[in-house]
Amino acid sequence: MKLLHTADWHIGRRLHGFDLIDEQQNAFNQIERIAKEEQVDGVIIAGDLYDRRLPAEASVAMVNEMLQQLNLFDQLPIYAVSGNHDSATRLATGTPWFKATDLYLHTALRQAFTPVELADTQIFLCPYFEPFDAQQYFNDDSLQHLDQAFERVVTEMKRHFDPAKKHLLVAHFFAAGSATTDSETNLTVGGLAAVPTDLLADFDYVALGHLHGKDALQLPTARYSGSPVKFSLSEASQKKGVWLVDTDQTPVALTFKPITPIHDVKQLTSSFDALMASADDDTVDHEDYVGVTLTDRQPIPNVMARLREVFPRIVTLSRADGFESQVQYQGESSQQIRQKSPLQLLDDFYEEVAKEPLSPRQEKWAKAALKDASEEGKQA
Amino acid sequence: MKLLHTADWHIGRRLHGFDLIDEQQNAFNQIERIAKEEQVDGVIIAGDLYDRRLPAEASVAMVNEMLQQLNLFDQLPIYAVSGNHDSATRLATGTPWFKATDLYLHTALRQAFTPVELADTQIFLCPYFEPFDAQQYFNDDSLQHLDQAFERVVTEMKRHFDPAKKHLLVAHFFAAGSATTDSETNLTVGGLAAVPTDLLADFDYVALGHLHGKDALQLPTARYSGSPVKFSLSEASQKKGVWLVDTDQTPVALTFKPITPIHDVKQLTSSFDALMASADDDTVDHEDYVGVTLTDRQPIPNVMARLREVFPRIVTLSRADGFESQVQYQGESSQQIRQKSPLQLLDDFYEEVAKEPLSPRQEKWAKAALKDASEEGKQA
Repeated sequence: MKLLHTADWHIGRRLHGFDLIDEQQNAFNQIERIAKEEQVDGVIIAGDLYDRRLPAEASVAMVNEMLQQLNLFDQLPIYAVSGNHDSATRLATGTPWFKATDLYLHTALRQAFTPVELADTQIFLCPYFEPFDAQQYFNDDSLQHLDQAFERVVTEMKRHFDPAKKHLLVAHFFAAGSATTDSETNLTVGGLAAVPTDLLADFDYVALGHLHGKDALQLPTARYSGSPVKFSLSEASQKKGVWLVDTDQTPVALTFKPITPIHDVKQLTSSFDALMASADDDTVDHEDYVGVTLTDRQPIPNVMARLREVFPRIVTLSRADGFESQVQYQGESSQQIRQKSPLQLLDDFYEEVAKEPLSPRQEKWAKAALKDASEEGKQA
Repeated sequence: MKLLHTADWHIGRRLHGFDLIDEQQNAFNQIERIAKEEQVDGVIIAGDLYDRRLPAEASVAMVNEMLQQLNLFDQLPIYAVSGNHDSATRLATGTPWFKATDLYLHTALRQAFTPVELADTQIFLCPYFEPFDAQQYFNDDSLQHLDQAFERVVTEMKRHFDPAKKHLLVAHFFAAGSATTDSETNLTVGGLAAVPTDLLADFDYVALGHLHGKDALQLPTARYSGSPVKFSLSEASQKKGVWLVDTDQTPVALTFKPITPIHDVKQLTSSFDALMASADDDTVDHEDYVGVTLTDRQPIPNVMARLREVFPRIVTLSRADGFESQVQYQGESSQQIRQKSPLQLLDDFYEEVAKEPLSPRQEKWAKAALKDASEEGKQA
């Protein structure tokens, strides 16, 4: 059987204020094209279809349209679970009807123990859950941490294993050993939020969602697909795409199919002048979402507005080596600075900013103000 | 064909802070029981399934459960439309899959022109729409008001009439001649929000939603079912229930089936003492939601807390004849009052409230304050 494994669509997500609707629709179109070209037997979506529990109407319309497209128009079976960003309750809307067209979308832990039964394969769909949900389901308060809860869940799943079939698992959690990026929100406070990967050993393939990089886990039979779109600068260097999983081979054969964004997310480290001069450089894609790190140390007036004339999609702006003024003070120890009088400090600061010393009149005002402040301090 | 006609469930609605979940579940259970006992061929829900466009998760779970119960478990066809309180986009989730089990839930105007085709009947499901939607659909800016838009909609529907069949319409709007209550939110600013009832003449039956009283429209072939639960004190005297519509007769035969609330909504007008004394009266249902109008005119300390000991579900409290103090002034004409000095007015007021005149010292302070105020007024 040939499956397409994707996850973490996060429909409704924004990148530092930039709408990603077009990027997400573009990525979906490529997923759909790959599924059709590769004639897959089904599409796995391992959680976080939405970016938020309370999605905007536009996001609801988009996810509805995508599921309809894949399942009703392309007639592809879908094996999906809810992730920690989804509202399990809202995502459950319509699911009892979806099974009739082989759209399986599990949102409650109890559903994890009723696998989708295919001719030669059992697919267990385990939605994101918290240890509390497992405590309730198993009526066992000892399941305090996710590793304990997940071990119990796997034990229960194995009771339903048909030994004549292969066993796939679709789930959404943080598997131990994975690398994280900025754009996964860590919702667990206290407790061990990671699941040890040895718990995944009994499955022929585990299709994971939650982490946004496809390389976060490098096991032969358990992978994150990663998100189809870069959602953060920390994902700038990641390759985005989907896994094609051929379950007829042992171990399963994995092929990564890349997704090409409309506009890439990149980190640029350069001088202001070089960036401005790149306006005429056709080899630079100025429409990318860029995190700019300036190597300059001097203040640059109106820097963001000027850079955005060349790079309209700047998402962050920072300095590689801070500002000159900060650097100059590195020569003085905190001991030396502490020995300076307030007037000396003010004079130094003024000169740093204004590039000229205090005028005699300014110095007179400053002295008077410092005297007043000092006397008020004594009275208090 | 025998149909059950209900509307305006408004799941998630509260009555002056009181949760109505139990009332709404109770009403639903009775609707389901009537549908099964009467062996109806389908259930019409004429809009406003939810109370708000952005329903809480608990409301989503409740509506999902109800539709599942009627359609999947009881295997009843459902003919439903979205109302002005629903989010058409959110309510559309899953609808393309629902048709397979004869759950028809139309949320977009364009769907109004594709009737559900039964052996001897066409059911047109027209969701709530605004004139703007009709302008867009017909590409005609002249459709400025709802009556114009609806006339065009009906004309278009009639183009799809099969003369060999009966024609039913399910819709959600304010039909002219109807009486309104407090609990329908009027969302139309400007424009004519009512649809003349003569536009409904070509249908064998029009199942309406929007107004909460079943008697709002008394036509032989067009009715509001009203809401299954009383949502406001202005609905206190209404009979709640559903219509059973037998379309095999001409004109259709209508039977009203009442729904009994757990706790009724009532208006009580009485004296404080009589209400308190009713605590021992078993003929009074103290658990009802009551709007209390006191006939007393004197102030009653801690009146709400004391009344709630006897009537825990008081929703409003008012006075039939105002307060004594206000009444005493009725003897003085506005002419007489205007001739009084500020100090006289203050003295009268103080005596009303404190039941004693100003002391000489208070009068001295009052004179000084009035003098200051008068001088400030001159300066300004």
